[in-house]
Amino acid sequence: MSKLFLFLKQTSGFATKGILRNNCKMSKSAVIILAEGAEEMEFTIAADVLRRAGINVTVAGLNGNEPVKCSRNVVIVPDKSLDQAVEEKYDVVVLPGGLGGSNAMCESKAVGELLRAQETSGGIIAAICAAPTVLAKHGIATGKTLTSYPAMKAQLVDNYTYVEDKNVVQDGNLITSRGPGTAFEFALKLSELLVSKEKAQEVAKGMLLTHN
Amino acid sequence: MSKLFLFLKQTSGFATKGILRNNCKMSKSAVIILAEGAEEMEFTIAADVLRRAGINVTVAGLNGNEPVKCSRNVVIVPDKSLDQAVEEKYDVVVLPGGLGGSNAMCESKAVGELLRAQETSGGIIAAICAAPTVLAKHGIATGKTLTSYPAMKAQLVDNYTYVEDKNVVQDGNLITSRGPGTAFEFALKLSELLVSKEKAQEVAKGMLLTHN
Ligand SMILES: [Cu+]
Repeated sequence: MSKLFLFLKQTSGFATKGILRNNCKMSKSAVIILAEGAEEMEFTIAADVLRRAGINVTVAGLNGNEPVKCSRNVVIVPDKSLDQAVEEKYDVVVLPGGLGGSNAMCESKAVGELLRAQETSGGIIAAICAAPTVLAKHGIATGKTLTSYPAMKAQLVDNYTYVEDKNVVQDGNLITSRGPGTAFEFALKLSELLVSKEKAQEVAKGMLLTHN
Repeated sequence: MSKLFLFLKQTSGFATKGILRNNCKMSKSAVIILAEGAEEMEFTIAADVLRRAGINVTVAGLNGNEPVKCSRNVVIVPDKSLDQAVEEKYDVVVLPGGLGGSNAMCESKAVGELLRAQETSGGIIAAICAAPTVLAKHGIATGKTLTSYPAMKAQLVDNYTYVEDKNVVQDGNLITSRGPGTAFEFALKLSELLVSKEKAQEVAKGMLLTHN
């Protein structure tokens, strides 16, 4: 039995967690909300890239754990329902775009509660394409700087500082991006924040992309 | 009842199909084979982009119509089984990458038969990432020029002219590409070939990409 393990056994549970977290030994966690009408490329790129980076990803079905029909009829099975998923805490809550999916998340009380809890605890919130409108609807990150799919700008300019010349925008714990064509950069930025720049670059290279 | 409809009713079934096909009124069709261990981004980008281009896409599960676990544990439900899907003809047969998925397609007699029939009829065959090895295994398009994920080069150089400085390679009816980071270009190229350059450019723009 290693000395480190013995040392950890001797510390309290709380201290153990603290030590592991500070040394980045515990893998980071993400929950991605999957709703009917989600943009399947934005969803899949986020899930796949974060898993390539070693992040523990939970795919949470907005309305349960049944298969979800996405915006272009790709059918994806969630890992669990959002109701089950919210029993744990996550380093990042990811909202994929797609008009139907975003509208469903706008109407969901559970999504509003999850986002408020994430904001209060200082966790990362990430939204791409149409999904920044979900933040607006639930009063999250008001006043911060963000971007979105161009067509959603009008719904966001009143409550946020809107940026349109960047593919991924970070304002503290808020990460936003613009559409399918910026989804790799969005997921790589999250990988950088949760793991490291080196890891994001390694993952990018494996996909034949670059990450600066 | 429109004059066009009356006219069509008066022609024979065969002639009707010919007229519609020549005028590009019938939408083009694609079958994408989905096997355990497929790269979910390469699969999803192909399905989504081709559907955005108005192409009729069938997702065919290699081993039936049950949910398929992809390479990074995203679970996708096929539209039908490959056995059912091969009862129809398609303008393009698309093979996504992912090592597990490609190996499964290499071992599949049904995939070999579908590819040989597609080659014989002059239809388009498209493969990305690890999937060009499926062509090699089944003796398809031997001698043609292609590309693949860099790690698969050694398995392809003996039977093909291998290109590594292009993201998408066309040699007649064979279209190949390199990995997740080239999947949008791959799908846009197929959209261009099946529909038109203008349509591919329109689809690219909607995703915040460009297609030249
Ligand atoms: Cu691959």
